[in-house]
Amino acid sequence: MSDNSPAPEAAISSQYAITLRIDYPRAPGRIAKIAATIGDMGGVIRAIDLVDIRGKRSLRDYTVECSSTDHARRIIEAVRGVEDLNLESVSDETFLMHLGGKLEIQSKVALKTRVDLSMAYTPGVARVCRAIEAEPKTSHALTIRRNCVAVISDGSAVLGLGNIGACAAMPVMEGKAILFKEFAGVDAFPLCLDTQDVQEIVAIGKAVAPTFGAINLEDISAPRCFEVERELDEALDIPVFHDDQHGTAVVTLAATLNALKIKGKRPQDMKLVVSGAGAAGWACTRALKNLGFGNIIVCDRQGALHRGRDVGSNPAKLWFVENTNPEQETGGVKDALHGADMFLGLSAPGLLGRDDLKTMAAQPIVFAMANPTPEIMPEEAEGIVGVMATGRSDYPNQINNVLAFPGIFRGALDARAHCINEEMKGAAAQAIAEVVTDRELSPDYIVPSVFNRTVSSEVARAVARAARNTKVARRIPKGIDIYQ
Amino acid sequence: MSDNSPAPEAAISSQYAITLRIDYPRAPGRIAKIAATIGDMGGVIRAIDLVDIRGKRSLRDYTVECSSTDHARRIIEAVRGVEDLNLESVSDETFLMHLGGKLEIQSKVALKTRVDLSMAYTPGVARVCRAIEAEPKTSHALTIRRNCVAVISDGSAVLGLGNIGACAAMPVMEGKAILFKEFAGVDAFPLCLDTQDVQEIVAIGKAVAPTFGAINLEDISAPRCFEVERELDEALDIPVFHDDQHGTAVVTLAATLNALKIKGKRPQDMKLVVSGAGAAGWACTRALKNLGFGNIIVCDRQGALHRGRDVGSNPAKLWFVENTNPEQETGGVKDALHGADMFLGLSAPGLLGRDDLKTMAAQPIVFAMANPTPEIMPEEAEGIVGVMATGRSDYPNQINNVLAFPGIFRGALDARAHCINEEMKGAAAQAIAEVVTDRELSPDYIVPSVFNRTVSSEVARAVARAARNTKVARRIPKGIDIYQ
Repeated sequence: MSDNSPAPEAAISSQYAITLRIDYPRAPGRIAKIAATIGDMGGVIRAIDLVDIRGKRSLRDYTVECSSTDHARRIIEAVRGVEDLNLESVSDETFLMHLGGKLEIQSKVALKTRVDLSMAYTPGVARVCRAIEAEPKTSHALTIRRNCVAVISDGSAVLGLGNIGACAAMPVMEGKAILFKEFAGVDAFPLCLDTQDVQEIVAIGKAVAPTFGAINLEDISAPRCFEVERELDEALDIPVFHDDQHGTAVVTLAATLNALKIKGKRPQDMKLVVSGAGAAGWACTRALKNLGFGNIIVCDRQGALHRGRDVGSNPAKLWFVENTNPEQETGGVKDALHGADMFLGLSAPGLLGRDDLKTMAAQPIVFAMANPTPEIMPEEAEGIVGVMATGRSDYPNQINNVLAFPGIFRGALDARAHCINEEMKGAAAQAIAEVVTDRELSPDYIVPSVFNRTVSSEVARAVARAARNTKVARRIPKGIDIYQ
Repeated sequence: MSDNSPAPEAAISSQYAITLRIDYPRAPGRIAKIAATIGDMGGVIRAIDLVDIRGKRSLRDYTVECSSTDHARRIIEAVRGVEDLNLESVSDETFLMHLGGKLEIQSKVALKTRVDLSMAYTPGVARVCRAIEAEPKTSHALTIRRNCVAVISDGSAVLGLGNIGACAAMPVMEGKAILFKEFAGVDAFPLCLDTQDVQEIVAIGKAVAPTFGAINLEDISAPRCFEVERELDEALDIPVFHDDQHGTAVVTLAATLNALKIKGKRPQDMKLVVSGAGAAGWACTRALKNLGFGNIIVCDRQGALHRGRDVGSNPAKLWFVENTNPEQETGGVKDALHGADMFLGLSAPGLLGRDDLKTMAAQPIVFAMANPTPEIMPEEAEGIVGVMATGRSDYPNQINNVLAFPGIFRGALDARAHCINEEMKGAAAQAIAEVVTDRELSPDYIVPSVFNRTVSSEVARAVARAARNTKVARRIPKGIDIYQ
């Protein structure tokens, strides 16, 4: 998430590519001089393109890969220092990629002739409208609802950026929408709301529902997210799914299933410490409790949640107090960790040290999922942990929601489910876990890669089947027999 | 609009094509028998496709063009009557076209590698978010706002269908969205709202604004539409445009400019009768008054609006009472018509007869725009009128909003205008009128065809230039010099 704090071994990357538009005299050795300056600073020139010849000077675009924005700034400064050179502009590849946004709305029907127009619009469209008016459920077949998900956010808890508001949250929600499309063929449209009032968000979610087949709530801060989700879910007959909670919980559950298999342990025999009592912490804890974990201690910044703590009216924390910590342990997360078999971190970077892990049971399961810097880095944990996972793509076992949400929504839309229930989430977790075969399963490979294209279709099938089995499906997908 | 009342000379059309799936014995003469039955009923067989051979029977799809749904029903009945034949199903081409909706959301960026993912989503996207957080106006460049319009409706006044609600309005709003794309490359997304409360619609419009570059209000009934538009326009820094009002007014103004040119008359010398005091009537009347029309009489169902009428709190009618009918004429529309130079109908089918037109000034201008059946049909008016226009595609001079709104929004987005002001609308009307050259101009050709692709780009250029001239543009479009 943080662009200014490169990872320990920050690599040159297209992600940090810049294009320098440089004007300089057409004289021997000038290109070599500029190239050497960039090379000396550790930049990698990917391309040099001629833009214009201006008499005795030439204008060229140097595209240079860097390792961070700081690195890019240092290269820019160095280039500015080259004699008789004019740096006209610098553009950033990531920003260029975002120009005009990342989504486009396309027509699925031709509109070249009067007949096309008369079928897709007036007068022919009136017959379709009347059919829906007579039987509203046909809107799930005759409009974009069949394949369209709203990605609704108020920008209050965006990635690691916090409360940046609706406008600034858009690039993330657009990104989410392209993940939906890329991984599951779902049409998703972002709606970033310029309000952080729970009742207003609920009212908007209810009002826009006729346009969508499902609602994905995204990056809404706790505890507001709980109420928004609960009220919308109760009011609407389409699925409402807060991905920060349930997507994370589903993938965590999948990873846990496989980690337990490696350890040869049953959930009920595990002591689990969860660090982080927010939206994801709540959803993960409930999912693991459902799986059979009995001894779970959840810690927030003030330490272990137990009956003696005053947690106000936060529904998640009230639930933790009532439903976890059977031995009513007190103290901080490091105290709770003594003898624990598993640690689930959804909290803050660098929370734990090597010595803390040593107080855990032998070869523990450690999921350190703080983003972008985990509670403990894998290299620090090496040799102590039995199975380790993070949220990062540059280490094994990346716990990434993209393994879950595209397939979950695909399955829910295919089944025309009116909700995404616990059985459907459980089926999704099981499907993700099973993509890793027994032969492949190892401490370094407990969850499939985000680029494994079989994941979303397996998840979709499992979710649609679970929807049918729990009677929340309104449509039996074609080829349902193969689901048996 | 009405599918059950075919136009006087209803033609066979793909719009009313049906596909009959028929199972029958594989015996000589069967295909001929079925074809003859369909032909006798006036249906035109477009295709016969084999679906399956089932022992001694075959299953085939007959695609048949009809002239109306009633005609289709009669053909279906006739086919059912053929001996030893089993009509398995009937599908309708217009409904098939609507299956799954008419819109698709596409990613504009590749997402095949980890680098792609790191630029379009986390972690790279965070830099773009931060840039917008620091300078919110950059959201117009770095997100879909640059090219994205919300088509917002509450489904309260849909085409000729009336108050059919949000779900049933979706096919129309999707159709509108594809018109935006097809005619001006604008990405438009429909939001059909399950509320008809003015304040709630306003709140939703305000809240979703960060996602869009402009808002097109659509098919919201009067007088609620006036308040929704006014409040949103005041609150937001993006254009808010109620197309039923202003789109209609712009095209009517364009047609009027050219009709006056043919007649060689000045607006101030005209007596104009407007039938219909709804949203479109209000917008058209104001536009024509701005053009210089002095003597305008607006009639609703109760007759001419004048100072003696109690019109409650309807802002449009209050405006008419104050600003039109300088001679305080009373009576019905037919009374008002005596000696009038122009009639503008935005009201009800078949309102006028040939004799009514005869009471007007010689060779009057008649725009009979009730949909789908005009206030008077062109054939009835023939010989009396000087210039006639309708809303229909099957007569000359179709006054259709699609001539206006795509180009107007294109121009407003290109200029990043914060509103669509009167000057911009006027410029759009002028641009549409000018697409018809003096050489081409004739009573049968006062507005360009909806398929004339130069219209939207001419309108866009004129609108962007007017935005710049009136200082509501926040961005000077590339190549602005050509606008001079």
